[in-house]
Amino acid sequence: MKQTFRLVIDCPDQIGLVASVSQFLADHGATIVEASHHTDLQTGRFFMRHEIGTEHLSLDYNAFVSAFTPLANEYQMQWKLSDSTQRQRVALLGSIESHCLVDILHRWHTGELYCDIPCVISNHPQLKEFADWYQVPFHWIDFKTLGKEQAFAQIRTLLQEYDIDLTVLARFMQILPQSLCRELEGRAINIHHSFLPSFAGARPYQQAYDRGVKLIGATCHYVTQDLDEGPIIEQSVKRISHSDSAPDMVRKGKDCEVTALAHGVRYHLEDRVLIHHNKTVVFA
Amino acid sequence: MKQTFRLVIDCPDQIGLVASVSQFLADHGATIVEASHHTDLQTGRFFMRHEIGTEHLSLDYNAFVSAFTPLANEYQMQWKLSDSTQRQRVALLGSIESHCLVDILHRWHTGELYCDIPCVISNHPQLKEFADWYQVPFHWIDFKTLGKEQAFAQIRTLLQEYDIDLTVLARFMQILPQSLCRELEGRAINIHHSFLPSFAGARPYQQAYDRGVKLIGATCHYVTQDLDEGPIIEQSVKRISHSDSAPDMVRKGKDCEVTALAHGVRYHLEDRVLIHHNKTVVFA
Amino acid sequence: MKQTFRLVIDCPDQIGLVASVSQFLADHGATIVEASHHTDLQTGRFFMRHEIGTEHLSLDYNAFVSAFTPLANEYQMQWKLSDSTQRQRVALLGSIESHCLVDILHRWHTGELYCDIPCVISNHPQLKEFADWYQVPFHWIDFKTLGKEQAFAQIRTLLQEYDIDLTVLARFMQILPQSLCRELEGRAINIHHSFLPSFAGARPYQQAYDRGVKLIGATCHYVTQDLDEGPIIEQSVKRISHSDSAPDMVRKGKDCEVTALAHGVRYHLEDRVLIHHNKTVVFA
Amino acid sequence: MKQTFRLVIDCPDQIGLVASVSQFLADHGATIVEASHHTDLQTGRFFMRHEIGTEHLSLDYNAFVSAFTPLANEYQMQWKLSDSTQRQRVALLGSIESHCLVDILHRWHTGELYCDIPCVISNHPQLKEFADWYQVPFHWIDFKTLGKEQAFAQIRTLLQEYDIDLTVLARFMQILPQSLCRELEGRAINIHHSFLPSFAGARPYQQAYDRGVKLIGATCHYVTQDLDEGPIIEQSVKRISHSDSAPDMVRKGKDCEVTALAHGVRYHLEDRVLIHHNKTVVFA
Repeated sequence: MKQTFRLVIDCPDQIGLVASVSQFLADHGATIVEASHHTDLQTGRFFMRHEIGTEHLSLDYNAFVSAFTPLANEYQMQWKLSDSTQRQRVALLGSIESHCLVDILHRWHTGELYCDIPCVISNHPQLKEFADWYQVPFHWIDFKTLGKEQAFAQIRTLLQEYDIDLTVLARFMQILPQSLCRELEGRAINIHHSFLPSFAGARPYQQAYDRGVKLIGATCHYVTQDLDEGPIIEQSVKRISHSDSAPDMVRKGKDCEVTALAHGVRYHLEDRVLIHHNKTVVFA
Repeated sequence: MKQTFRLVIDCPDQIGLVASVSQFLADHGATIVEASHHTDLQTGRFFMRHEIGTEHLSLDYNAFVSAFTPLANEYQMQWKLSDSTQRQRVALLGSIESHCLVDILHRWHTGELYCDIPCVISNHPQLKEFADWYQVPFHWIDFKTLGKEQAFAQIRTLLQEYDIDLTVLARFMQILPQSLCRELEGRAINIHHSFLPSFAGARPYQQAYDRGVKLIGATCHYVTQDLDEGPIIEQSVKRISHSDSAPDMVRKGKDCEVTALAHGVRYHLEDRVLIHHNKTVVFA
Repeated sequence: MKQTFRLVIDCPDQIGLVASVSQFLADHGATIVEASHHTDLQTGRFFMRHEIGTEHLSLDYNAFVSAFTPLANEYQMQWKLSDSTQRQRVALLGSIESHCLVDILHRWHTGELYCDIPCVISNHPQLKEFADWYQVPFHWIDFKTLGKEQAFAQIRTLLQEYDIDLTVLARFMQILPQSLCRELEGRAINIHHSFLPSFAGARPYQQAYDRGVKLIGATCHYVTQDLDEGPIIEQSVKRISHSDSAPDMVRKGKDCEVTALAHGVRYHLEDRVLIHHNKTVVFA
Repeated sequence: MKQTFRLVIDCPDQIGLVASVSQFLADHGATIVEASHHTDLQTGRFFMRHEIGTEHLSLDYNAFVSAFTPLANEYQMQWKLSDSTQRQRVALLGSIESHCLVDILHRWHTGELYCDIPCVISNHPQLKEFADWYQVPFHWIDFKTLGKEQAFAQIRTLLQEYDIDLTVLARFMQILPQSLCRELEGRAINIHHSFLPSFAGARPYQQAYDRGVKLIGATCHYVTQDLDEGPIIEQSVKRISHSDSAPDMVRKGKDCEVTALAHGVRYHLEDRVLIHHNKTVVFA
C-alpha cells in the first residue's frame, strides 16, 4: 500500500478556509490524490477530506500535525490526520449467523479491508471455527452463565486489552448497554437487517413479510444509545415479491447485509465518514 | 389490441383445482398466453391468473361466465373474468404537482396504459392546462370554499357520474374520508412519496432528509381507511447522499413516484394484482 | 433561481493549483456552494468545478473573467465561467417516439431543467402536437422529399438561426453527417436505447431479446463522428426476464431512456460534465 | 429439507397440455408448492416447472417416472423429475481469485446451497487453504508442467471419477477445450466479469474503464463452445463513476460476480433454469 495521509476537517464554513488549507498543503509539497468538500447549507458546517500523497511531502506525520495545529485552531476545526499505512484494530462481534462475519474476515484476509483484526468475540461458540481458520483469537462470552452485566464487562475489558479502534457488530444479537454505547461512540458499527427506519427492533424480516413490502434492505450505522437510531453510513436494498416467504427474505436480505456492512466498514477505515449530529457525510 | 380474457381466481388451495380449471379451459379451446399461480403457504390460499387467447375459444364472455360458475362455486372461488378489450374508466385526482398526473396521461395517450380517462379532478386549478391539452374534462373542486365534506361529496358524485372503475390519486394531497375509502376499496390507488412504512404521513422527503437515509423511495398502494397503510403494489428507490438537499431529494424522488405509480396502475388495469388481507399478490 | 457562477477547470495537475484557485476565490469574496475535484492519475490531468455564491463576490461576470485569465494561463487551463441565471438554448430533435421529448419538455416546463427550448425539429410531423402545447415552434424537416443532405442543411441552418447551445437527440432516428457531428462536438447529446457498448446500432431491443440478457438499459452520450461511440454521460438499467417479449422490453426500456437522458441533459446544463478524450468526468 | 419432486417440462405448446399434467398430478395426490409456466410465443415452445409436495403423493420417484412417461411421450416432452433431497455433485474450478470460490463454499457450508462439493480443482495452488478448511479435496492441475491438453485430460478424469453433475467455473481463467464444452453442455456454469455482451474476452474491467461506462457488471452463463456466448442465467450491475480507477472497478465488480454466480448456481441446483436455444427460461 502506497502511503497517503488523510486530512479530515469539520468546522464552521468561512471564506478563505479552503485557500488556507490548500496553501498549507502546497507549501509543504503535498500532492492531492483525492479531495472532497461538503457544506451543510442548513447549519453552515463545512466538511473536507484530503487524501495526500507523501512522496514529495516535506513533513512527516508528527511535523504535519504540529505545523497544521495553528491553522486548525484559527478556523476552530475538529480535525484529524491519519496515516494510511497504520492499520486500525478492529474487533468483530458476532452471535450465530456467519455471513457478515465471514465476509469481513475474507475481505480482510485478501487485503481488500486494510486493518488488523486481533479478535472475534461472540455470545455463542459456533463461530469459533471461522475465527480459527483465519487465525484470529476467538472469545466466547457466555451470556447465559455470566449474566448481561458481567458479560459486557468482559467484552469491554477485551476491547481495551486488544486496544480496539473499531468495533463491528456483525449480526451480534445483544443490545449494548448505554455506557458502552457512549464509550464506543463513533467507533462502533452495526448492521441492521432492515431498511431503517422501517422495521427497527426485532425480527425485521418477519415485519417486512407481514407488511408486504416489495423491497427489503439492510442498514449499516453507527451504534448510539438509541437502538437502531444511529447515523446511517450505508443502505442496500433488493427487490422481492409475494412469492418470497419470510425465509426467502432472510436469504435474500443476507446479501444486502453483507454488502452494506462491508461498504460501511471500508468507508470508516478509510476515514471517509464524518458524523454530523445524527447523520453522516460519506465521501465515498 | 388482441383480445384476451383474464381469469383471476382466489380460493382455498385444494388438490385437483388446477386440473379442473385447466381442463375447463382446454375443453373450450382456450390457448393460454400467460399463466401464474401462487400458494400462500401460511394461509393455504391459492391465487391464479390466466391470460387466455380467444381465437379458438368456443365461448363468448357471457357464455364463459355461465359455464365456469358451477366450477367456481365448487371450489369456493372469488373470481372474475375480464375482457382485455374493455377499457376500465380511470379518474385522476391531483393537486398541484404535475409529474405523476402528466406521466399517466402521456402513457394513456400513447396507448401504453389501456384505459379510458374520462376526467381529472383536483383541489387546485393549476393542472387544468394539462387536462385540457389531453382533452380530458377537468373539475376543480374548491376545498377552501366548499369545506371538506361538501368537496368530497362532489368528488363522490363525479366518480359515480363518470362511472369510474379506478380512482388514481396522483399526488392528491387531501386525505379521503373513511366512508369514501370504504366505497373505493380495492379500486383506488395512491402514490406515497416515501419508501413505506418509513416516513408515512406528511413531508416524507423532509423526514428522510432529517433521518439521513441513503436511499429514498416511493410506494404505490391501495387506499384504505388507515392512511398510508394499504396493501402495497409497487415500490421504487433511488440512491442519495449527504450532498442532496431536501429539494434535491424531492426532484430525485419524483422519478421514483412516476415509475412506481405507472407500474401499479398498469398492473391493476391488467388484472395482475390480487389483494390478500393487507398484502398483494402481483403477477407482474 | 439564486445566482451562482460555475467555474470549470481542466488542466495539468500541479502542486499549488488548488491553493491558487482557492486563494483567488477567497480574495474576491466568493462563497463556495459546491466544490468537486478529480485527478486522472493515468494522464495527470486535473478537473475542478466550483459553484460560487455571488452575494459577497466583488467581481461581476466580466471582471471575474478578466481577473482570472492570468491565473488560467499560468496553469494552462481549459476553463469556463458560467452564470447560472443565463439559460442555455436547447433544440430538441425527435422523430416519432414521444416519451423522451415530452419528458424533457415537461421538466423544462416545470422548471426542473433550467434552459430555453426555442425549437423542436423532427423528421416526422407527429410530434407537432406536443411542441404546440408547450408553445415551442415546431419544424418538420421532410427527409423523404428533401433528401438527407438538404434536410441536414436545413437543420444546421435552424440551429444557427435559433442560436442553439445544446442539441438534444430525443430518439431522433437519423444519423447525423460527420461534418455536423464535428460542428456540434461537445454540444449534442444523444440517447441510445441500449446499455452501450452492448447492442450499438439498429434495433437494440431486438438484439437484447435475441441475446437473452437479463437486464436492459439506455445510454446518454455525446454525439461524435463514430456512431454510438461518444463519451458516455449516464446509463440506466432495468431487470427483465424470459417472460418479457421484445415489445415488453421496448416499454420497460423507455423508462430507462427517459431517466438517463433527463439526467444527462441536466448535468450538461449545470456544467457538471467535463469531456476527457472519449470519457466524461461527471460531478453529479 | 422437506422433500419435493421437481417436474420440469419443455415441449411444443398444445391445448390440453396443462390440463393433462395437472390431472395427472391431482390423480396421484400431488400438492403443488410452486408452479411456473412460460410460452415462447415466437417458437410455440412451452416450459413448465412444478414443485410438488410428496406428503400425500401415491407414487415414489420411480413409480412417478414410469407413470408419467406415456403422457410425456404423447406430448413429445423433454422432461425430468428430480428429488429435492438428492444432492447434486458440484465441482468448483478456480485459479487465484478467491472471492467467488469462497462465497460458494460458504453458502454450501451453511446449507444455503443444497449440494455436495466433492472437489475443488485449480490451475494454481493458492486456493488450497480455502478448500482445506472446508475439508474439500483440492486438486492442483499444473498447466505449466502438463501442457494444456494433458491438464484438461486430468480435469476431465477428475470430473468423471467424482461423478460430477455440475461444474462451476468460479473465476477459472483457462478456456475449456471444445470437446469438454460439448461434454459438459448444460452442466457447466461460468461467471464472466462483465455485463455481457459488452466486454467479452480478456480484461473486461480494463475494457470498461477505457470505454468510460457508468455501470459495471457480471454475467453468469452456461459454458458453450463459443467463449462468453453461452445462455445467460443471471446478470448483476453496479454504478461507478469517473473517480473509480480500474482497480476500484475490480473491487466493486467482485460483489457483482459473487451475487450473479451464487444466484445462477442456486437456480440450476433447484432446477429453475431451462435452456432454449441460446437463451434461458429462469423460473426464479
